[in-house]
Amino acid sequence: MRDKITVALIGAGRIGLEHAKNLASFPEVQVALVCDPVIEAAKRVSPLARAAGITDAPEEVFARGDIEAVVVCTPTNTHAEMIERAATSKKAVFCEKPVALDLKRTREALEVVRANGVPFQIGFQRRFDTGYAEAKRRLDAGALGRIDQFRAVGRDPGPPPREYLAKSGGLFIDQAIHEFDLARFLAGEVDEVYAWGAVRFSEDAAAVGDVDTATTLLRFKSGALGVIENSRRAVYGYDIVTEIFGMNGKIVVQAEPKTPLRHYSESGYQMDHFHFFMDRFGAAFRAELEAFFHCLAEGTEPSPGVADALESLKISVAATTSWKEGRPVKISEIAV
Amino acid sequence: MRDKITVALIGAGRIGLEHAKNLASFPEVQVALVCDPVIEAAKRVSPLARAAGITDAPEEVFARGDIEAVVVCTPTNTHAEMIERAATSKKAVFCEKPVALDLKRTREALEVVRANGVPFQIGFQRRFDTGYAEAKRRLDAGALGRIDQFRAVGRDPGPPPREYLAKSGGLFIDQAIHEFDLARFLAGEVDEVYAWGAVRFSEDAAAVGDVDTATTLLRFKSGALGVIENSRRAVYGYDIVTEIFGMNGKIVVQAEPKTPLRHYSESGYQMDHFHFFMDRFGAAFRAELEAFFHCLAEGTEPSPGVADALESLKISVAATTSWKEGRPVKISEIAV
Amino acid sequence: MRDKITVALIGAGRIGLEHAKNLASFPEVQVALVCDPVIEAAKRVSPLARAAGITDAPEEVFARGDIEAVVVCTPTNTHAEMIERAATSKKAVFCEKPVALDLKRTREALEVVRANGVPFQIGFQRRFDTGYAEAKRRLDAGALGRIDQFRAVGRDPGPPPREYLAKSGGLFIDQAIHEFDLARFLAGEVDEVYAWGAVRFSEDAAAVGDVDTATTLLRFKSGALGVIENSRRAVYGYDIVTEIFGMNGKIVVQAEPKTPLRHYSESGYQMDHFHFFMDRFGAAFRAELEAFFHCLAEGTEPSPGVADALESLKISVAATTSWKEGRPVKISEIAV
Amino acid sequence: MRDKITVALIGAGRIGLEHAKNLASFPEVQVALVCDPVIEAAKRVSPLARAAGITDAPEEVFARGDIEAVVVCTPTNTHAEMIERAATSKKAVFCEKPVALDLKRTREALEVVRANGVPFQIGFQRRFDTGYAEAKRRLDAGALGRIDQFRAVGRDPGPPPREYLAKSGGLFIDQAIHEFDLARFLAGEVDEVYAWGAVRFSEDAAAVGDVDTATTLLRFKSGALGVIENSRRAVYGYDIVTEIFGMNGKIVVQAEPKTPLRHYSESGYQMDHFHFFMDRFGAAFRAELEAFFHCLAEGTEPSPGVADALESLKISVAATTSWKEGRPVKISEIAV
Repeated sequence: MRDKITVALIGAGRIGLEHAKNLASFPEVQVALVCDPVIEAAKRVSPLARAAGITDAPEEVFARGDIEAVVVCTPTNTHAEMIERAATSKKAVFCEKPVALDLKRTREALEVVRANGVPFQIGFQRRFDTGYAEAKRRLDAGALGRIDQFRAVGRDPGPPPREYLAKSGGLFIDQAIHEFDLARFLAGEVDEVYAWGAVRFSEDAAAVGDVDTATTLLRFKSGALGVIENSRRAVYGYDIVTEIFGMNGKIVVQAEPKTPLRHYSESGYQMDHFHFFMDRFGAAFRAELEAFFHCLAEGTEPSPGVADALESLKISVAATTSWKEGRPVKISEIAV
Repeated sequence: MRDKITVALIGAGRIGLEHAKNLASFPEVQVALVCDPVIEAAKRVSPLARAAGITDAPEEVFARGDIEAVVVCTPTNTHAEMIERAATSKKAVFCEKPVALDLKRTREALEVVRANGVPFQIGFQRRFDTGYAEAKRRLDAGALGRIDQFRAVGRDPGPPPREYLAKSGGLFIDQAIHEFDLARFLAGEVDEVYAWGAVRFSEDAAAVGDVDTATTLLRFKSGALGVIENSRRAVYGYDIVTEIFGMNGKIVVQAEPKTPLRHYSESGYQMDHFHFFMDRFGAAFRAELEAFFHCLAEGTEPSPGVADALESLKISVAATTSWKEGRPVKISEIAV
Repeated sequence: MRDKITVALIGAGRIGLEHAKNLASFPEVQVALVCDPVIEAAKRVSPLARAAGITDAPEEVFARGDIEAVVVCTPTNTHAEMIERAATSKKAVFCEKPVALDLKRTREALEVVRANGVPFQIGFQRRFDTGYAEAKRRLDAGALGRIDQFRAVGRDPGPPPREYLAKSGGLFIDQAIHEFDLARFLAGEVDEVYAWGAVRFSEDAAAVGDVDTATTLLRFKSGALGVIENSRRAVYGYDIVTEIFGMNGKIVVQAEPKTPLRHYSESGYQMDHFHFFMDRFGAAFRAELEAFFHCLAEGTEPSPGVADALESLKISVAATTSWKEGRPVKISEIAV
Repeated sequence: MRDKITVALIGAGRIGLEHAKNLASFPEVQVALVCDPVIEAAKRVSPLARAAGITDAPEEVFARGDIEAVVVCTPTNTHAEMIERAATSKKAVFCEKPVALDLKRTREALEVVRANGVPFQIGFQRRFDTGYAEAKRRLDAGALGRIDQFRAVGRDPGPPPREYLAKSGGLFIDQAIHEFDLARFLAGEVDEVYAWGAVRFSEDAAAVGDVDTATTLLRFKSGALGVIENSRRAVYGYDIVTEIFGMNGKIVVQAEPKTPLRHYSESGYQMDHFHFFMDRFGAAFRAELEAFFHCLAEGTEPSPGVADALESLKISVAATTSWKEGRPVKISEIAV
């Protein structure tokens, strides 16, 4: 690996703060700038990244020739622009998911990445979790043989606020995309989807024309069958379970309990559950950045990359269409 | 409870043998006859039931005025006739599932049961498993509040022979009916289904026009969503998992490990898995019969009864139709 | 196996009632008599055993030439006499543990058994639990190689009444003997013990000069080290855990959860625990009797037998001595 | 918290390297110097700590007035001297365990700490593991009521080399001290110990007069009983289990499985086990340093401190004496 790589962090909100801490933990990474239009945010996050400077102007980042890579944690509706400007400036890009909420804008931005030949990685952090990464290793080693069924559940502890929901693109694009990406990562490309949705508890979801509960059937190109279950609320916490079933067995990834503690009392025994994505996937957020910088240092291609950003979004769009139109939708139908 | 109840066991095959042992374990039950057209089978099973006699003629059973109840374990295609003759003879009936493979014959037989006012119980034994029974108790006590999602998986260790498959009615009727019954038992009546099926490994299934792998979406009358996954083969054994998700939490019934033993070695630690339904649900088979005789003694109505036999089969039929026609099917569409 | 074996059940109390049910479930077993000095008890238990008759006089059992075997469930202080009379009458004996509370009386009774050459089995039922039996199979197959450490915990849900405690022989003889027997069964013969005891909660234990909490070190003849922990009270139920550690790994037998159900709520997830020995070891009670009758039918020697009854008690006596005298005690010191 | 604290890392070996990474992750910490007599080691570790400089001379560290705290990771036989010199230079001290292998030297060094009034923390990192920290919180909140029994097991994957063993102070001082510290942390002070040891597999242990397997009884001042089991080798990895049993239940801390993955195959299902202390307690190593710096920033007293370093070692010394002399040893016997 190279000794040094100079980096900028763009976006100093909640997730930017987490990335800042992780950037400080890589000895070869030097954070030159933390950039946020709210300069106070940049100021607060800067020491966590051990950053050399701060700015409220992204153009300052893009103008700096010494900055080789950017980590983009801005609001979703600015991702595509940041990616394009970074790529045009010949900087490697790590970007939080999604590139954009629609396929057209996503495709445009990724075209700029391709045209400029810069390394690109999208923030599907679950792929770097010890459980999912180990599952992938075993699958690649042929542990299950041919895969026949896939299942994932994704439940958040509670729904986001109405304003967020209104701009989120809907449950299939905002939430289920993580499960769709796991499906592709672990079981291969998807051919067709069929989705049912329901409003069970969230007036906000109803108000913005979204659902809070959904089930999506997947038919993989291999012929395998899959199913994704989602809910915007689970009182016991953050519920992420994935199962891959094949001709030689099955692998289940299910992060329980949260702590290595069993508490026995008159009512049996009790264990803790994870609360939300940062306590469940905190280590994966660090690992995905580590992998990104490793690829930059080695000159290899980061992953998940352009194709993953695009293909996983296509499934989300197809599922949304299926839910709205009440019919199976082929991924090939989805125009880009 | 009453001191004595005189019973006949009709059908001395594999499952009849299990019921015979259980009958011997109820002190109030006297098995008057074990009946099987293959008299050698009746002879072999008779001592297990501590039976007073054997016969190869069902009419002998129905003619005996002292016999109050029959346990029917004959081949599926004779169930309806046995039920009708027993009911006409005013005997209480416990019958292995299903009543018949089609709704018309099922309805006819159950009409005879109703017309004669005899107690009737169908062999959905899972309802009597300690896990499912406890889940039901907690749900009835309101532990989860409103139910929003339901999931069940049913995987057998291996597919039955082609001859069995050819007469089985197909995966949705033969295998998935157990999961459909659990869905009704735990989450309420079903309004609509949508099913996908695939042939992944079984040439026999393909040859008889059946599938070996399937996923079925359920929309409950309550608006809750459900999903059932089935496979005819799992190398690790008999895989039965059920999850009920509601506004106050979720309950998962998953029988693992098989033995209370963990084996730690260089490759981590290992636990055993159940092989098939007799090692997983052996105790439930006993418990369902115990409940049946308890109802007879108390004069209460056995459960699951006529309506359960009919309604669970309707879901199977609807799922079969959905799979064949590639569209959602309402349970109300299913003519009876 | 033989077609028929005629048996008497002596003692129709709590444990006799359980054995009665199990006796009825073996088709080859005919219970000729249920015997209890309280004839009402015999009457109540008789139908559970599908017994041909009842009596309040043990001599009636011993005089009957057609009775080949007895199952002894009388109060502990009569075990030795029942064993001797049965053996002298040339009947095979299954006897609940212990033979007697002291070694002298135990030795005398077992000498009579040996002298008369009758089959004998002592009721260490845990050896027939699926977990312990499977552990034994793996150990015998060399799964762990040389054994280096052994651990068992035995905790009852609550202490027995003072009258029972006063006659029980003390915690090491009454309770810990089950763990000592498991130690011998799974890890081999014991050379030396060292025990600490304490009164933590039971005034009754203090009043009768006993302890309610104890830890016993074991040094096996092989040089392996072991430890047994006991408590007379655990609010969460019946806590029986055993661990065998060897050069190639370890095996843990720990029966949790009680039901195959996980309940997720705001406080994490919860599972049930076993309450007492009948819900934990119910199946083992049946299996030990089944094994006994299997040996009688095959003409093989039942196990655990005379030597096990004696050797496991010796460890209990040695531990009691160690606790009282505050020093390590060799099993070879224990005079018999 | 304060904005900045200037720190030196003394010792750049295996554990120093881990601490270096963690130091870089605390934004308020500035590592002024990495010190190691092998300057190449200091050079290698320095970028991990984002250190300003390196040195091979500890006196350079102690002479620097701007350095407020030192993290000591040198070989054990230099700990006491480093502590004394740091304390005399008025620097706060975090030191890996143990202070020294004998009580006299430990007491001397800690006296210098006390005399100079500098903050001191000893590296019992397990106290900062999520499982143990949560157990402590629940115990302090009275979750178990009075504690009656305590159990810990500590097994390493394999024995250290003979040279290490020869200078380690022996199993009770080198390895079991972690379990003894957990006993004090979770169940209170110890009054008396009794230990058995054995050589089961390690010729090296035998050659240096040590054991590789041991069991230690603890009698707490509260009257509760405890037991510690140790082994220098476990083929399945790093085996650390702790159980606290009280009048209202029990708490077990047992870190399994290593990854949130279950692999089902024909031989049942398999999960991974931790390999050694860095994969099991990596996060705890970071958390203990974080707590240390938090205390410095807040002006509160770090913990575990001087008394813990001393008292836990006393138990180790008492256990060693008990093993050698074959008798129970009171902690109060241990002269300091």
